[in-house]
Amino acid sequence: MPTLILVRHGQSQWNLENRFTGWWDVDLTDLGVEEAKAAGRLLAEKGVMPTRAFTSVQTRAIRTLHLALAEADRLWIPETKDWRLNERHYGGLTGLDKQETREKHGDEQVHIWRRSFDVPPPAMDAGSKYDLSGDPRYAGITIPNTESLKLTIERVLPYWQSDILPVLASGETVIISAHGNSLRALVKHLSGISDDDITGLEIPTGQPIIYEFDDTMTPGERYYLKDG
Amino acid sequence: MPTLILVRHGQSQWNLENRFTGWWDVDLTDLGVEEAKAAGRLLAEKGVMPTRAFTSVQTRAIRTLHLALAEADRLWIPETKDWRLNERHYGGLTGLDKQETREKHGDEQVHIWRRSFDVPPPAMDAGSKYDLSGDPRYAGITIPNTESLKLTIERVLPYWQSDILPVLASGETVIISAHGNSLRALVKHLSGISDDDITGLEIPTGQPIIYEFDDTMTPGERYYLKDG
Repeated sequence: MPTLILVRHGQSQWNLENRFTGWWDVDLTDLGVEEAKAAGRLLAEKGVMPTRAFTSVQTRAIRTLHLALAEADRLWIPETKDWRLNERHYGGLTGLDKQETREKHGDEQVHIWRRSFDVPPPAMDAGSKYDLSGDPRYAGITIPNTESLKLTIERVLPYWQSDILPVLASGETVIISAHGNSLRALVKHLSGISDDDITGLEIPTGQPIIYEFDDTMTPGERYYLKDG
Repeated sequence: MPTLILVRHGQSQWNLENRFTGWWDVDLTDLGVEEAKAAGRLLAEKGVMPTRAFTSVQTRAIRTLHLALAEADRLWIPETKDWRLNERHYGGLTGLDKQETREKHGDEQVHIWRRSFDVPPPAMDAGSKYDLSGDPRYAGITIPNTESLKLTIERVLPYWQSDILPVLASGETVIISAHGNSLRALVKHLSGISDDDITGLEIPTGQPIIYEFDDTMTPGERYYLKDG
């Protein structure tokens, strides 16, 4: 039976500092490392053993994957990394802590940017210290300068359809280690959640979410592995 | 210019205990972890930045790769794992410490097994505690029950030709994190070392070895990155 495991990366340094991160590449904190390892131990305990892995090109998701797989003795499975699983690009908010952002733009505007489905934050300024155009991992890719959740979905779902779904349909147990918003994109699609409701759905860090698929590749109800 | 980086995994638990390891999957020691990180720091310092990675399906080589890439901020490059880069299979010697082996088989015989080019150790007994036939990472693969260095070369080189060389020839900087004998296979081929001489060539752990290739894909002299 095709099984999908979604894991949001463990706590990152900027999660801890409450700063908008997006595509900026920050590492896990010690707590984030422990969350990732705990996710792997849970996979092993429950006997849900991934056979194929997908992740973004961001360190915090890749390390979460590797730490979890090591705990489950599955470091040897094939893994594919793709920018289309990256976090939502927060544009000009990148690097600001959430308090600074509120002071600068007002509570209401921040709430709109964080929770609106299709209103992107202001674009990142060219030459910003968080501009990634010189980063070799994005060579050949048009880096967005901001993304709404809607725009995030528009690059996550085509990748899901073209690269992940066929692997899953061949009977593999696929683990995706990714980010709050790239995982929201998948959960919205698989659980049929409305545009209005998806922005309020929190994906907890390091907590494996499971979908089992039937013969027609229809996903069942999602559940947390810890409850399964 | 195509560049090849070879790294032998850092010290493993059984290197430390002086036991024949082969295909048995043992993890790195704390020293091995430090060796792997130092290899990655050296890559960054020298500006030799891998763009594609290959490794075996053995934890000690995969973790060495990940630890090194993390230090060089290259965890995001594509990586491929293949059993054909595994360590030589030590057959019935697997798990024995080197002193036990000498007492059981005599110094001379052990020397022959370790240093002969084409004499494999005795085959692993079916039902040995080190039998890997139930290990899912080898599903669909005919696991050898022992290997000489010659037999090791006979599965490493076809993989080099079919999967690694074309990637290198496209201009990539390829890192291979592997094992004493799978790396001997490559060094023998690339540096034109005789059957007699290759068995005495030691590949040090965690010490990147570099080959630069010219337009005709002829490798230059190999050198240690620390000296380059």
